[in-house]
Amino acid sequence: MKRSFIREILEHTTSDTISFAGGLPDEKLFPHLALRESATHVLGDAKSLQYGTTQGYLPLRNKITHLYTTEGFRTTADNIMITSGVQQALDIISRYHHQEAITTESPSYLGAMNLFDLNQLEQHPVTLHRDGIDIAAFETSFSQTKLAYLIPDFQNPTGYTYTQEKRAQIARIVKEQQGILIEDAPYSELYFKEKNQSISALLPEQSFHLGSFSKALAPSLRLGWIRADKTLLEPLLAYKEAMDLHSNGLSQAIVDHYLTDLHQYRSHTALLRKMYSKKMQVFKTYLDELLPTLEYTIPQGGMFIYGRLPGISTSALVKHALKQGVVFVPGREFYYKQERDDELRLNFTNCSAKEVYRGLSILARIYKQACHTNKKAA
Amino acid sequence: MKRSFIREILEHTTSDTISFAGGLPDEKLFPHLALRESATHVLGDAKSLQYGTTQGYLPLRNKITHLYTTEGFRTTADNIMITSGVQQALDIISRYHHQEAITTESPSYLGAMNLFDLNQLEQHPVTLHRDGIDIAAFETSFSQTKLAYLIPDFQNPTGYTYTQEKRAQIARIVKEQQGILIEDAPYSELYFKEKNQSISALLPEQSFHLGSFSKALAPSLRLGWIRADKTLLEPLLAYKEAMDLHSNGLSQAIVDHYLTDLHQYRSHTALLRKMYSKKMQVFKTYLDELLPTLEYTIPQGGMFIYGRLPGISTSALVKHALKQGVVFVPGREFYYKQERDDELRLNFTNCSAKEVYRGLSILARIYKQACHTNKKAA
Repeated sequence: MKRSFIREILEHTTSDTISFAGGLPDEKLFPHLALRESATHVLGDAKSLQYGTTQGYLPLRNKITHLYTTEGFRTTADNIMITSGVQQALDIISRYHHQEAITTESPSYLGAMNLFDLNQLEQHPVTLHRDGIDIAAFETSFSQTKLAYLIPDFQNPTGYTYTQEKRAQIARIVKEQQGILIEDAPYSELYFKEKNQSISALLPEQSFHLGSFSKALAPSLRLGWIRADKTLLEPLLAYKEAMDLHSNGLSQAIVDHYLTDLHQYRSHTALLRKMYSKKMQVFKTYLDELLPTLEYTIPQGGMFIYGRLPGISTSALVKHALKQGVVFVPGREFYYKQERDDELRLNFTNCSAKEVYRGLSILARIYKQACHTNKKAA
Repeated sequence: MKRSFIREILEHTTSDTISFAGGLPDEKLFPHLALRESATHVLGDAKSLQYGTTQGYLPLRNKITHLYTTEGFRTTADNIMITSGVQQALDIISRYHHQEAITTESPSYLGAMNLFDLNQLEQHPVTLHRDGIDIAAFETSFSQTKLAYLIPDFQNPTGYTYTQEKRAQIARIVKEQQGILIEDAPYSELYFKEKNQSISALLPEQSFHLGSFSKALAPSLRLGWIRADKTLLEPLLAYKEAMDLHSNGLSQAIVDHYLTDLHQYRSHTALLRKMYSKKMQVFKTYLDELLPTLEYTIPQGGMFIYGRLPGISTSALVKHALKQGVVFVPGREFYYKQERDDELRLNFTNCSAKEVYRGLSILARIYKQACHTNKKAA
């Protein structure tokens, strides 16, 4: 198995590197003091330190259930399993579906593609457009695979969001084909204007909906969950148990206590949306000034701007950039067969405005040099 | 995949059930107030909430390294990978060694056997004696498998401990055969008299030594680690990354801060040893009074007393016991082919003396009834 470009980069950059690479939230927005209050409360009692149940801490599952039901998505605590982030949720599901075929978006989330490989799923990539996956190609592929992995909100890496129409079409196809949808939704709370309806809400019995506190609260808590029909969830428990018995109980108890004040959580995510929307605007302004040839779509939420630099190998570009103290992820990494090399993913949530300006200036300079070299070679 | 008896039981017992089943530490001994102090410190800064590195938080890896070097086992931070408990460490290693053959103890840890099945390892069980595995049978088996999984200290389920002589013999065989040992050591700090030398210390380049804070501090932190030669550890990083990116960062930072005062940690584990030794004595006294026909070996540490009730099916017994509010694990669960049914595992760390007396009295009554029924049938 190969390690991912992103994780390796994360481990080799210095504190001086300007990183547009990882999907890092802005540390300044972590609610660490509120979580500290919850930790103080929770650790007043030894109970939160004992072994817990494999499916997850029931009070927390109840609170997650409430988040669904208030959105009109009928859910009970039986439908929820707590996992160590969405990453582990994906591992559990793809381990259960090992050696099956799966329809994926192209490009897609690197960490999912690695897991599908590890669990020997046969990946069938289908082109992702700005308004969602190519429906005709999806229908053809899904009729064979009966299993799909999609990220409909502010997709990773592209930042694209599915239209309501495409969501309904996907739901119709999955129903007609009697298949299963894995809907990965780690960014869903990070919308700039309005929250999208999940496709799973249209398909409650034929979907795994994957949620996470990594982006809405903090990643180091490693808390995600699977929402699924009980008959789909039940067989996964034995896998979760074999893999790590249960997810971190202290984190679960802390987040459960934090969510007791739901208003506090709502205010926090509202602040995140406001700040990330501003950060995206700043990033966009500098991009348009410094890299005007980048072709991209303005995201409606999430953490990434994805674009194309025509005629340039971004995987060559990133090597020069790294030497100059800037890093991003070349688009090639997100294609199953690495077939495109002129795209790149830029994270806009982590860096300060000053760093963004400096980082993009450096990128622009290297890009100009590369264009110049290309011209001379031609 | 089947769920384990123990985890299912844990989830179906009520708060009134007297449980000798799980490997639960005594909650009263959790250092929750010291961990609260560490949590308060750590959460004063938002940094501990950000994504971390796959191999684990470096300051914590340094502290674990120090625990090894003070015992004369040469180790650097490069040799340590933090995992979500020993359970995940076993999953990572057996995933990497999937479809290989492996020599195991018979009986062995249920959670490991499940993982070996999940990862399609071919299990070769070798009889475990009171002083360690059967050496001749081990040598024959290991010459074929080149991979072994052993729990030399206060084994789960038997509580048996390998003699120094057998440790040396195992090391010799693993070296001669140029194979690899997986040494599971979650109970190693829970010795009553003196700490045993790990077999891995004799085999630093051919072993995975698995350690854990689940028993020495608290299980819900889900923090374990793998100590291995860098060449053995390196390929596992891609698996760990694919599985959950990294282990809980908040727990890692809290335990790192807690370990800054090493004296505090040493005093805590010394207290655990003293209290668990006392608890074992109490358990033993009641056992000898109430179930005098139980054949067992007095453990030198750990959490379990394992014994045999001649002529009785303990898997039938446990069903009656559950109805009367007492639960233990029938020995059959720990045999790969479930070939023995007259043994049982009793946890002595979790219940109070009063509960132990009441629970063992109930077991004794049910046992007498079962013997009576057996006689009548004969």
